[in-house]
Amino acid sequence: MNDKLTHPYLLQVSDLSYDDIYKIFNRAKYFIDNYKAGTKFDDLKGISVALAFFENSTRTKLSFDLAAKRLSAEIINFQTSTSSLSKGESLIDTLRTIEAMGVDIYVVRHNCSGAAQFLQENTNGIIINAGDGKHEHPTQALLDTFTLYRHFGKLEGLRVCIIGDILHSRVARSDIAMLKILGAEVGLCSPGTLIPRAKDIWDVTLFDTIEEGVAWADTIILLRLQRERMESGILPSIREYTKYYGVTLQLFSKKPGLVLMHPGPVNYGVELDYELSSYPNVLIQTQVTHGVFIRMALLSLLGQYVKQSSKS
Amino acid sequence: MNDKLTHPYLLQVSDLSYDDIYKIFNRAKYFIDNYKAGTKFDDLKGISVALAFFENSTRTKLSFDLAAKRLSAEIINFQTSTSSLSKGESLIDTLRTIEAMGVDIYVVRHNCSGAAQFLQENTNGIIINAGDGKHEHPTQALLDTFTLYRHFGKLEGLRVCIIGDILHSRVARSDIAMLKILGAEVGLCSPGTLIPRAKDIWDVTLFDTIEEGVAWADTIILLRLQRERMESGILPSIREYTKYYGVTLQLFSKKPGLVLMHPGPVNYGVELDYELSSYPNVLIQTQVTHGVFIRMALLSLLGQYVKQSSKS
Amino acid sequence: MNDKLTHPYLLQVSDLSYDDIYKIFNRAKYFIDNYKAGTKFDDLKGISVALAFFENSTRTKLSFDLAAKRLSAEIINFQTSTSSLSKGESLIDTLRTIEAMGVDIYVVRHNCSGAAQFLQENTNGIIINAGDGKHEHPTQALLDTFTLYRHFGKLEGLRVCIIGDILHSRVARSDIAMLKILGAEVGLCSPGTLIPRAKDIWDVTLFDTIEEGVAWADTIILLRLQRERMESGILPSIREYTKYYGVTLQLFSKKPGLVLMHPGPVNYGVELDYELSSYPNVLIQTQVTHGVFIRMALLSLLGQYVKQSSKS
Repeated sequence: MNDKLTHPYLLQVSDLSYDDIYKIFNRAKYFIDNYKAGTKFDDLKGISVALAFFENSTRTKLSFDLAAKRLSAEIINFQTSTSSLSKGESLIDTLRTIEAMGVDIYVVRHNCSGAAQFLQENTNGIIINAGDGKHEHPTQALLDTFTLYRHFGKLEGLRVCIIGDILHSRVARSDIAMLKILGAEVGLCSPGTLIPRAKDIWDVTLFDTIEEGVAWADTIILLRLQRERMESGILPSIREYTKYYGVTLQLFSKKPGLVLMHPGPVNYGVELDYELSSYPNVLIQTQVTHGVFIRMALLSLLGQYVKQSSKS
Repeated sequence: MNDKLTHPYLLQVSDLSYDDIYKIFNRAKYFIDNYKAGTKFDDLKGISVALAFFENSTRTKLSFDLAAKRLSAEIINFQTSTSSLSKGESLIDTLRTIEAMGVDIYVVRHNCSGAAQFLQENTNGIIINAGDGKHEHPTQALLDTFTLYRHFGKLEGLRVCIIGDILHSRVARSDIAMLKILGAEVGLCSPGTLIPRAKDIWDVTLFDTIEEGVAWADTIILLRLQRERMESGILPSIREYTKYYGVTLQLFSKKPGLVLMHPGPVNYGVELDYELSSYPNVLIQTQVTHGVFIRMALLSLLGQYVKQSSKS
Repeated sequence: MNDKLTHPYLLQVSDLSYDDIYKIFNRAKYFIDNYKAGTKFDDLKGISVALAFFENSTRTKLSFDLAAKRLSAEIINFQTSTSSLSKGESLIDTLRTIEAMGVDIYVVRHNCSGAAQFLQENTNGIIINAGDGKHEHPTQALLDTFTLYRHFGKLEGLRVCIIGDILHSRVARSDIAMLKILGAEVGLCSPGTLIPRAKDIWDVTLFDTIEEGVAWADTIILLRLQRERMESGILPSIREYTKYYGVTLQLFSKKPGLVLMHPGPVNYGVELDYELSSYPNVLIQTQVTHGVFIRMALLSLLGQYVKQSSKS
């Protein structure tokens, strides 16, 4: 089976080729089809995975944890609050220490953009970026596009409109990059203060109003509105944001077949009405379910690099 | 083996019938008789258990953790401090997210009364209440009554006096309810400010002094005195509480055969003299030991609902 | 195999005889030679190990965690922040509770000197001291001397100079004691305010300047400088400390064959120049790697006491 990825790490979407992405999708599909309760796959047997989360996380950490468990990995949990980082130990020194204990794969979340890349350049381990500052969150993009692929059957020409705080969103950056690789068309809809000035480097369509975005799109991806944006003066008020950029049942019902996704956690009442939370074609729960399988697929494929190098 | 419980959850004692309780006792006895170091039972093989503790806990969490491990469950640890709750994610959204990852059983502790029931009504998972506010702590009642059952051989007619802060105690509420189902007689002994006004809904005997309670009882259950009660003005002073409601060696020795229990952690020197901590018939350690086996029994019996529904 | 240690615990270095230490070294060597990725040894199968860390720790906790996992132990993680200690539960009551759940071995770190011994005297469990206040850190001494043993082939007559804050260092206390048992010569080099007044109880050589220490030594062990020392007025400034006691490439290169160790985490730029971090004969990473194997060895040998007593 020659399904190696191009690079022995995943720091950002551009590390993956079109073929790489479909290798991951195919492996995820294999796991979906073959996972039954109690199944343990042997893909990571004898491989140690460190979950190094330097920033709070529920879903991403649990998702990687379950994925690694179901592949029979040895798992090391590493949290900021219980670590020596409070003693001022440097990030790289921490990872080298874990490495010296015989750990192979590092799932890293950090609030500094570039942290994952910095670690990849300075250790021998296989780094998976689970979110670095405002930069990227590539496994979120994998599960988002996989969810669309499963729903629509293909991604070429699909119109996806991302709505909300693009400026501060690593999810948006990763989603845009991966959707373009896969041949989808991307639209953005955001208040002027929440979109990057350098937006023209992306080949995307901009929409002034959410109604226009919805009219154009096959799928809308909502982003979480961080409440601190308002306090910092970027937004006049949450109420005004919700009025112009929140998705209501009325708006969503206008377009039959429209798909809605959100990376979670959702601010219900802000970017999305609660009554939509379990509506048909609102795929938020499906994204979570797919997240575990996509991460199993990624870990499985990257694990082949471990077996080849240090473990032979 | 037809030992299904009446309900596929345990939110409060009234969810259990007399027969349900003895099914759990019998299963716990089976585990006590057959557990040897290193034994792993298969009862929860292929079943995921989330330990969702939104409130600090040592013994209850460890107890469930060990119980689930010894039944071969896949365990997910979920703590407030490392979760997205700090981002304001709602309780129910959190549980739905865990659910979407394929978790079946949720052991939930929360400082709001009713949290467990709220979650049971809004998710498809099997909820076990591991303590919700001042409402109930049903597995504590199971291990308390099981400990008495093992010690006395039967519970009918047994006289149990609960001493201390009844008002704020979920343990007291669950113990009273379960002791009544099992045919025991219940007495209460408490300062007037620490007993609920609506105490008459319980068919219990009230004792003004601890001496009267001890004279009447076969067993006394002490409750932990929360130090913050004094600060809020409900108690004049801890010293006065200890003088009137604390159990000394002298008092305990007066009545041969008297059994003493405490849900822990004990405030030694407040409700109980330290020298009694390892005295015969002081069953505090036995309660802890039984706690693991009772929780194994409960998880095992509830696990049958998982196998039937989502996993077939 | 008769390789029992003298005592069923490890509280301080003086609990170990010369023979005990080499029994541990030999078992560690066995694990190094036989460990391959994915190997699980059965040494602790059916034995429960509690990691009771009442003080923050990265490397020591991860190291014990991995060691216990690779010996197939059942592992209980116990952290202060999520425990009832915040409710004021006493240390000993906490351990007795864990004990009642069927745990056999306790790896304890606590910021009070003597905590490990106190627990050993008051419980039936097997206690391993993973650092208690300023008192001792015996497994660090085991991995330090093991690293030297593997590097030099023998320890008798080896000259080891410990440099830095001896006064507050449990690592220094344990290293000195173990090096003396193994026949090495010990030197100390420290600012006058950071060396204990009662230093004469140790049979050691004192050096006024780091140059003299380096000239004398085969190996130097640097200690971490706690930044709070300066604030408390014990040190005039970190810059001055670094000037007189920091190790630079220039100093280190002067003496071919000199070995440098550090228990970590290193304050790079204070006690050690960063460019030395991955230099030949700088064995900091090797110490970490050996740490896992030494702890496997210790757990394996102490586990024999469990099998004999409570588990037969």
